[in-house]
Amino acid sequence: MISYENILLNVEKWLSEIDCAHEPRNLYEPIDYSLSLGGKRLRPVLCLSACSLFRDDYESARWCALAIEVFHNFTLLHDDVMDKAGIRRGKPTVVAKYGLNTAILSGDAMLIEAYRLLSLTDSPSYPLVCDVFSQTAMQVCEGQQYDMDFENRTDVSTEEYLNMIRLKTAVLLAASLKMGALIGGASLCDVEALYEYGIQLGIAFQIQDDLLDTFGDEKTFGKTIGGDIMSNKKTFLLTTALERATTEQRLELASWLSLTDPVREEKIEGVRNLFIATRAREVAQAKIESLYSKAMNDLRAMDITAEGKRMFIDSAEKLFHRTK
Amino acid sequence: MISYENILLNVEKWLSEIDCAHEPRNLYEPIDYSLSLGGKRLRPVLCLSACSLFRDDYESARWCALAIEVFHNFTLLHDDVMDKAGIRRGKPTVVAKYGLNTAILSGDAMLIEAYRLLSLTDSPSYPLVCDVFSQTAMQVCEGQQYDMDFENRTDVSTEEYLNMIRLKTAVLLAASLKMGALIGGASLCDVEALYEYGIQLGIAFQIQDDLLDTFGDEKTFGKTIGGDIMSNKKTFLLTTALERATTEQRLELASWLSLTDPVREEKIEGVRNLFIATRAREVAQAKIESLYSKAMNDLRAMDITAEGKRMFIDSAEKLFHRTK
Repeated sequence: MISYENILLNVEKWLSEIDCAHEPRNLYEPIDYSLSLGGKRLRPVLCLSACSLFRDDYESARWCALAIEVFHNFTLLHDDVMDKAGIRRGKPTVVAKYGLNTAILSGDAMLIEAYRLLSLTDSPSYPLVCDVFSQTAMQVCEGQQYDMDFENRTDVSTEEYLNMIRLKTAVLLAASLKMGALIGGASLCDVEALYEYGIQLGIAFQIQDDLLDTFGDEKTFGKTIGGDIMSNKKTFLLTTALERATTEQRLELASWLSLTDPVREEKIEGVRNLFIATRAREVAQAKIESLYSKAMNDLRAMDITAEGKRMFIDSAEKLFHRTK
Repeated sequence: MISYENILLNVEKWLSEIDCAHEPRNLYEPIDYSLSLGGKRLRPVLCLSACSLFRDDYESARWCALAIEVFHNFTLLHDDVMDKAGIRRGKPTVVAKYGLNTAILSGDAMLIEAYRLLSLTDSPSYPLVCDVFSQTAMQVCEGQQYDMDFENRTDVSTEEYLNMIRLKTAVLLAASLKMGALIGGASLCDVEALYEYGIQLGIAFQIQDDLLDTFGDEKTFGKTIGGDIMSNKKTFLLTTALERATTEQRLELASWLSLTDPVREEKIEGVRNLFIATRAREVAQAKIESLYSKAMNDLRAMDITAEGKRMFIDSAEKLFHRTK
């Protein structure tokens, strides 16, 4: 039976076969390093899983799955440059290890490599897959730009925030499913249903990430808690809290946001309490539940095998039960 | 009759039709700005000209020509980030005008847009054109990395330098011809002949640029003379001079290179004199002549119309008589 685990084994094997043994080393070594940093490989697994729903041989989606993973790692690499991030997955980021210029150029080369890998796809759906890939890639850039724009704004609405995470996070998850399904030969109706399922899950996933950053357990979350609060990051919790706050609560929240040199524990505690008092935490939890249920209902309604559904439910659970 | 000028008019028109009127503005406005900075549009014109040699309707190569120009401007944008350049074509660079993060992200979006434009190509040669595009794009990155690597080395050979400019400059010119010819339906023999012609011209063009930076006339060159000398840039002149110098000349050159705070005019004058004394200047001029003649001979030997040959000779003259 096809499972997340045995697809993942193939993804890791295929990724390791991408040939980075070229000159100049300063261009290719950071690409190799970036791809070896690990991760859940969620997107390529989703792509191959989606293909396997409609076709025995999921290897047809091999190059597309690899293109998606290389593209995703390119976005992480350049995001780390823009965020001046020093650590990713417990190791130095490419920009921290190799410097700014090498990080920019290696990222560019990864984007080109992603398109090269994609072009190896041998499928009648290739032109359509290619369109989806470029459109999605552009949307991810749009999401990243909105995210950066939001840093300089204090009036971001929850609606704008949801649109941003749809672009920055959800569309690539959804497109991974869509491209896999297209290569598998799915009907356009099934393709769109899978895409919508991916969008719901992707948005729910990002809101859960916001929740964990503020209310999670450091041991299981694997990151320091409270980073979003300390950097005044516009998250679902913050935009919701600002929209639901009483005048008094809004003033208190604004005063935490305006402190130039707050005591870390005090600010985290203070803002957390406001997220609870305004019920922003509950709203976030309810939003995740509602998106998750909607995704699962859409999945159940799809005309695919029970085995296929089981595989997707497993993947979704894997994605959401990060704290267990 | 098809001429550089009337192809150029179409290129400018088509470029202006690329739709940048999207949100978020901070992503799309820098792309619009970058594409509006002008330039000779040499690469798309070469692509369309090459197509027109083999086919009445050069519009078949429209999307490929636009993809090449957008890709070229993407490389200029990211190169300016890496070089911390403030001015391009007399105007602020994207990084100077919009900041580092926007410049990185807008560049990424331009690379994606280049691939999207390319994918609009409707031609039986499309898969081959796509391969050439990705391979060339990767080579341009390799050339840029070598160029950066050379900054920290003192032992760069002329052979290494020639390989670097082949990758950084010549392959994109050559590939523009190749892709145009492929879309035009040329035989693989003609395609390769045009590619070689482009490589020779591209390398000659870059060596001429090195010569002009050191021995040109500021009024007609349009840039400050001596920039390469002041930054110890590894150019054809410098690698050749170092290889041809007597022990005494090598010591003198090394001492100019090692000065931390030289008087500008003195260093330029001193290094220039060494380029003349070692005959590096003459060698550079002879190299340009030899590459140019070889390119013209290759062109004459090609099985294309006299009118086609005339058009390419005109383009080459336009490229090389920049000082007139």
